[in-house]
Parts: sequence; structure tokens; C-alpha cells
Amino acid sequence: MNTTQAQLGAVLAAGGPELARLLDRTETRLAEVAEGHGQELARHSTATLSAGGKRLRPMLVFLCANGDTDERLVAAAAAVELLHMATLVHDDVLDSAALRRGRPTVFAEGGRLAATTTGDLLFSRAFAELASTSSADAVRALSEASSALARGELMQRADAWSAAVTPERYLERCRLKTASLFCASCRLGALFGGRPAVADALCGFGEGIGLAFQLLDDVLDVSGPEERTGKPRGTDLLDGTVTLPLILARAADPGLAELDPELTPEQAERVCDRIAATGALVAAREQALEHVARAKASLGRLELPQQRRQALELVADGVVERYA
Amino acid sequence: MNTTQAQLGAVLAAGGPELARLLDRTETRLAEVAEGHGQELARHSTATLSAGGKRLRPMLVFLCANGDTDERLVAAAAAVELLHMATLVHDDVLDSAALRRGRPTVFAEGGRLAATTTGDLLFSRAFAELASTSSADAVRALSEASSALARGELMQRADAWSAAVTPERYLERCRLKTASLFCASCRLGALFGGRPAVADALCGFGEGIGLAFQLLDDVLDVSGPEERTGKPRGTDLLDGTVTLPLILARAADPGLAELDPELTPEQAERVCDRIAATGALVAAREQALEHVARAKASLGRLELPQQRRQALELVADGVVERYA
Repeated sequence: MNTTQAQLGAVLAAGGPELARLLDRTETRLAEVAEGHGQELARHSTATLSAGGKRLRPMLVFLCANGDTDERLVAAAAAVELLHMATLVHDDVLDSAALRRGRPTVFAEGGRLAATTTGDLLFSRAFAELASTSSADAVRALSEASSALARGELMQRADAWSAAVTPERYLERCRLKTASLFCASCRLGALFGGRPAVADALCGFGEGIGLAFQLLDDVLDVSGPEERTGKPRGTDLLDGTVTLPLILARAADPGLAELDPELTPEQAERVCDRIAATGALVAAREQALEHVARAKASLGRLELPQQRRQALELVADGVVERYA
Repeated sequence: MNTTQAQLGAVLAAGGPELARLLDRTETRLAEVAEGHGQELARHSTATLSAGGKRLRPMLVFLCANGDTDERLVAAAAAVELLHMATLVHDDVLDSAALRRGRPTVFAEGGRLAATTTGDLLFSRAFAELASTSSADAVRALSEASSALARGELMQRADAWSAAVTPERYLERCRLKTASLFCASCRLGALFGGRPAVADALCGFGEGIGLAFQLLDDVLDVSGPEERTGKPRGTDLLDGTVTLPLILARAADPGLAELDPELTPEQAERVCDRIAATGALVAAREQALEHVARAKASLGRLELPQQRRQALELVADGVVERYA
């Protein structure tokens, strides 16, 4: 059992039997969506939807609720996971990726058209799930997150190869492209789980761990090792994606100011070493840990049952452990 | 003034000054959406959103309402147009199209990533518009249409080059990929325009003219002329898209059973001539006219003010006139 699995086991233990049941119902619901909207979706998305992943966002939905097993919570959990998957399917098209989580991507199996359209269909079904809850607030939360994800991608594209990306702009991009859906997951859990008064606060918790999640992912791209991440070090550098480690390293090593669009994978590894030599990885990691610490501390100010707080803290720790 | 413009003028006259005002407000709203969600969306989508088009779907929203100028009608009209545009932007990526309505596509200006993501953002904003109405029924109508559009595309892909597509299967594809959004536009108009009791019936009207719209589009691809359609005859044949004219022609000319994936544009023109020689274009066109006639007749069974019925009939006629 690896660290992540151990951590998830701890969350499940803290969340109690109803958490496990709700997650099971979410799996069932995702399978129904994959099978219930035409042969083509079934063919292309069953693998994607069942390929696992950590179901971190559905878990946040349930943990931010009061322990009821309202059907709307399952709809919300399915919705955030469907939206997450829609973006993964589109990302794989844009990256021409052959594998995800060790399985062939929709792009690899069905081609560009099938994958783009399957992504669109998953988007649509995410909103259809929420429509079943009859809550306009919920639809608003998801559409805001969905817009933010797309804006984050566009921002990343606009900033590619740029020498002028500030830490603030980088964080805004992380907030848009990653943290927004963590926030929405927590908000939906609070809305349907009888805690509307703390929906904003729980969104803030989700946002904090979402930011840490993205920051640590970006650190890992530079630090490797490849056996751990499943991709060569410096993939972001090869794509022109300017992340916090590079931004911080530039201040100490002006030779890193310009990213070479003709970089080879070998040269990218050397740039990674050079970034690490400035101490930027340690500094970026510290920022991530601060976000997690602040997120955990924010829970202390909310009226939550002890067991729920503990489970949410474990999720926050899990984000860090994933990279330990 | 061409036929379409004359027809739209007649609809506007029949719809009265409030229709023109509602359409103006829709333009304003679309411009706000394009400008209000980050520099990148503004850059890529302002041209797309303002490039005109006939605003046929917003018009259906307003004409299916009772003449009120409820703000929710404008939100619904903006939503259906945003969803329509999202699909156009994604279609242009998949076709690597350089121009749409005489302007560079998002794909041509921003590349594959910017266009895929801009499409996703437009999808998200469509649902955000409807969330502002606080109506779960409306979100459900849009998400059903949005799913149908994607399913229709997937079905078209699955049927490409197939010798076995039946007329029924072709019509089901048209219903999914085109008629569903016409239906949703009418349904949203009925929902927010004080006519919920006739929402299903008005959806049926929209579906009928949507089917005719797609059928006639497919006839035109075979009949041309190119000066009229802006694209060479037989584009569908080159893509492997099996449409009703080909399906009907195959019954009379077994030589058309197999579509050659290596077809040249010149050969495609000759296949078009061969399809026309079987009388299939006349037969397909007749089916389209029947759908329009049935849609118009269905209005007679509803309690609608004379002026509204007349305006809807003019829209139905406009779908045909476009191809006269």
C-alpha cells in the first residue's frame, strides 16, 4: 500500500461507513451516466469514468456535508467528478496523450473528434446531474468553477514562455484552473449537506488545499523522480508553462529569465537542476504547506463535529503526503 | 437585401417592437459575457459572438414567450446562443476551419488549445446565464439539449462512411445534433414567457423546424451551388457524413452503396450529380417541407395570439426560404 492509499484509508475510517456508502453510490451513478447516453459515450467514457482516480472532489462534497445521505449530495459528487473528467479528456486531446492512469485515453482510442465531443458530453452531463437537484445555487457554483477552469487554461496559454509572470499571477492561475473546483466541491457539500451558513468558509478551505495541490504538482514536475510522477522531469518547461519554481528561481539566477522554446528533454532536466540549485523548490513547497496549514486552521473557526474536522484535515494532509 | 434578410425583416415586423428590443438586449448581454471573463475570452470570442449569425434560436425563445420582457428571457436567449457558439467553435477546431461567416475562426487566430478552451468557456457561461434565472427546469432543458448535440456528433462520427445508415437513424441524428437546441429554445421561451402549459408543444414546433433546417442543409451540400453555400459541393461526402440524399439515392442506384474514403473533390461533385439524378434531392426536400408544414399546423392547435403565431410561421417559412 502506498502513502496515498494509506491516507485515503485513514480518511475513509474518519468519515465513517456512510462516507464509504456515498462514494459507492457515486461510482454507481458515474457508471449509469457513462452507459445511459448512447453507445458512443459508453464506448469512450466507461474506461475514463471507471479508471479510478482518487475521487478527491466527491470526497470533499461528502465531508463538507453534515453526514446525511441526501441523494442531491451524490448528484453533486457525480457532477464535480464529471466536470473534472471532461477537462481531463480535453487536456488529453490538446496534449495528444496516449495514456492516463495507465489506460488508453479517449483521444488514443477514438481520435480527436470523439474525444472533444465526449468531453463536451461529460460537461453537459455534469450540469444535468445538478439540474436534478433543482438548486440554482448549485448550478451557479458549478458554472463558476467550470468557467474558472477554462479561464485558467487560457491564462496558462497566454503566459506560455513568458519572462514576466509574477508569483501573484501564477497563484491566480492556480486558483482558476485547480482550486476553483475544490472550492465548488466543498460549497456543494455545504449547500446540500445542511451547512449553507459555512459554505463560503468551506469553499475557502477547498481553495487552500487546491492551491497546495497545484503548487506541489508543479514542484514535482521539476524535482521528479520520473518513477514517481510517471512523466519526465521538466515537462512544464518543454510546454512553456511557467510555474512558481521557475519564477522564484529567476530572481536568484537571471540566466533562467528566458525559456528556450527549442529545449530538448535533456536540456530541460538540466534547467530543472538549475532551478533546484537556487532553493526555489524548497521555497515553493513551503508556500504549499502554508496554504494547507491555513486551510486546516480555518476549520477550527467553524462549528463542525470533531470527526468531520478530522477527516477534512486528513484530506488536507493527503494532498501533502502525495508529494512527501 | 437577400431572401433571408427579407424574411427576418418580416419576422421582426410581426414580432413587434418588443422583439427588436429583446434581441438588442441579447446582443448587449452576449457582448458583456465576451468581455467579462478574462482578457483571453474577450480576445478570442468577441469576434465570434458579435459576428452575427441570424440569432434564430434567441428569436425562437422570444417568440414562444407571451410578449413580456422578463430579464430571464434574455438570459435564456443568451444561453442558447452561447451553447450554439460553443459547438461552432469546437466544430471549427475539429474541421481545422479558417473562416466562419467570413471571419477568421478562433481556431485560426488562437490555435487548437485556445479554441477548445474558449468553447468550454462558452459552454460554462451558457449554464451560468441560466443559473441566474434560478430555474432548475431551464437548466435541465439546456443540459438535455447540450447532451443531445454531443450525442449527435458522436453518432455522426460512428456512422461515417457507413453503407448501413437508415433514414430513421439519420433523422434521429438530426434530432440530436440540430433539432434539440431548437426545441430547447422554444421550451425556455414558454417556461419564462408565461406559457409552461404549452412548453412541450412549442418544443415540438422547434424540433420540426430544426429537422427541416438540417435536412435542407444536407440537400444543399449536394445541390450547391457553391456561390450560395460558400463551400464546395459534396463536402459531406468527403467527410464520410452519410445524409438523407445519399441514403435515398442508394435505393435507386446501388453503385452509390459504398462511399470511397479516397474521394477527390472532383469525384465528389460527380457523386453529387449521380445522387441528384435519382430524384433523391427532391424527395429529401419534400420531407423537409413536410416537417415545416406539420410544425406550422401544430401551432393552430395552441392558444396563441394571432400575431405570435404569424411570427412563428414566418420563422418556419424562413428555414425553407433560406434554401429556396
